[in-house]
Amino acid sequence: MTAPNINSANATTHAPANAADRLLARIEAAGAPVCVGLDPVAEKLPAVLRPAPGHAAAANAIGEFSRGVIDAVAGIVPAVKIQAACFERHGPAGVTALASVLEHARAVDGLEVILDFKRGDIGISADHYAASARDAYCADWTTVSAYLGADSLTPFVGQGHGAFALVRTSNPSGDAVQSLRLADGRTVAEAVADMVASIGAASVGTAGFSALGAVVGATKPTDAAALRIRMPQQIFLVPGFGAQGGGVDDVLPCFRSDGRGALVTASRSVIYAFNAADRAWHEAVRRAAEDLRTQIGSALGVRA
Amino acid sequence: MTAPNINSANATTHAPANAADRLLARIEAAGAPVCVGLDPVAEKLPAVLRPAPGHAAAANAIGEFSRGVIDAVAGIVPAVKIQAACFERHGPAGVTALASVLEHARAVDGLEVILDFKRGDIGISADHYAASARDAYCADWTTVSAYLGADSLTPFVGQGHGAFALVRTSNPSGDAVQSLRLADGRTVAEAVADMVASIGAASVGTAGFSALGAVVGATKPTDAAALRIRMPQQIFLVPGFGAQGGGVDDVLPCFRSDGRGALVTASRSVIYAFNAADRAWHEAVRRAAEDLRTQIGSALGVRA
Repeated sequence: MTAPNINSANATTHAPANAADRLLARIEAAGAPVCVGLDPVAEKLPAVLRPAPGHAAAANAIGEFSRGVIDAVAGIVPAVKIQAACFERHGPAGVTALASVLEHARAVDGLEVILDFKRGDIGISADHYAASARDAYCADWTTVSAYLGADSLTPFVGQGHGAFALVRTSNPSGDAVQSLRLADGRTVAEAVADMVASIGAASVGTAGFSALGAVVGATKPTDAAALRIRMPQQIFLVPGFGAQGGGVDDVLPCFRSDGRGALVTASRSVIYAFNAADRAWHEAVRRAAEDLRTQIGSALGVRA
Repeated sequence: MTAPNINSANATTHAPANAADRLLARIEAAGAPVCVGLDPVAEKLPAVLRPAPGHAAAANAIGEFSRGVIDAVAGIVPAVKIQAACFERHGPAGVTALASVLEHARAVDGLEVILDFKRGDIGISADHYAASARDAYCADWTTVSAYLGADSLTPFVGQGHGAFALVRTSNPSGDAVQSLRLADGRTVAEAVADMVASIGAASVGTAGFSALGAVVGATKPTDAAALRIRMPQQIFLVPGFGAQGGGVDDVLPCFRSDGRGALVTASRSVIYAFNAADRAWHEAVRRAAEDLRTQIGSALGVRA
């Protein structure tokens, strides 16, 4: 399979000054703003990869599976999002596998690598987490909590790196905090959005988008439309498409009217698109990624 | 040095049904509600432990230092809080060191082990993080984000495990979200406090405190007093004492009038209480932990 080589945004450098510019270039080259989410669990792997009991075997198996998925979707999607929790549950062996998966993904031309680790800390601890993402895992983007304010966001942005701040999550219980109404009429999520837009203004690239983006769940289309207006320069990372219940109509409000500004992530519907006994599981994953690209690309084409 | 052995709450079991009951018993046995925070960085280690360049050497060094600090404070304080970020910045080698430090702390009789990793995710990812804390790291308590609602809290509580939800953090920029005023008159932090109190009601132990506690920074004494009223059954984990600027008077509002209900954490003022060239650095750390215990114990004694 071939992967696009995007001049200044290739795997060797990963280094244009602004992460948003690089991600947008890769989306354009791939033809659709889609991302494959890697949330691997040992029990769901193809039979041929199913591990023996124990953390070490499980970590190796989900690592091998993840690298296989990356190979399968290379050249089809412009980004992968790797869920740290799936690896961290296996302790040090899992984290070693996580590092190997990120290293593998970084070597694919034209592929942006998002480490979904949702860290949220302050001061030197935030600096440590940012250093872990940059130096130890070499992620292009991370996901980060915004509840602690600018301190927990700014260390993750700059020098070619970007971050998606948690603004509006896809789970029902998030409403208990995010949908609260402020005295000034905004919801808490809208206030966080305004903060993210303000902080992100310092890192806007030449394409008009910031290296500080926002997580906005696919299951909240009404909120997404309001948030799109409040964060015109943020790229939305949109989880919850597919298995979590979000459909094409639900994700469209995350985009600007020109069809830009969001990255739709599908996880289980792509990475588990095989029959467990199928030894050629890569092909099923590849077809599912192609379907994802076609589905979102067509919807945006019709809309534009 | 000797460490107290607290009958049903010893290191072998770590297993009373309720984490709050166990923590309170350990605080009582130690004589003061204090916690030593381990935020080790290679550049600040005693000269004798200062590592060569590189992640592996740094990870080994901060691991050895942390185990030494734990030995030094054993029998003096009832709890240690280990900052995951310091270890994760060194990648897989750091996480291996982190696991060794937690294992070491767990083997100390009478010592409660808090993994400060501030995770915040939903669904199966939250379950993964909870599994990592329980199975891979064997932490008694974790710190967790509350912005995603109950989904991000409940997996971390129960079966002898507890969690401290981020309610009011010690950093100035947290005000941008946490101090926002809701239409009903509460601040966002107060609304999160009410949610934590409500969710935590399901895990209250025989001593009247919940296994779901709250992080309330030592630098916000006025807010702490209001939050203490809203969360009568929450144990407050109080960072920011000492080096971050919080003093004794600042942490007293975190306690109930009976002197219970909070755990004051000091990090840099204890773990770096040595001269860099001092080979007997353990003794300086031990004395600083004793001073911490005396300082907080006396203040509560006077108040009670």
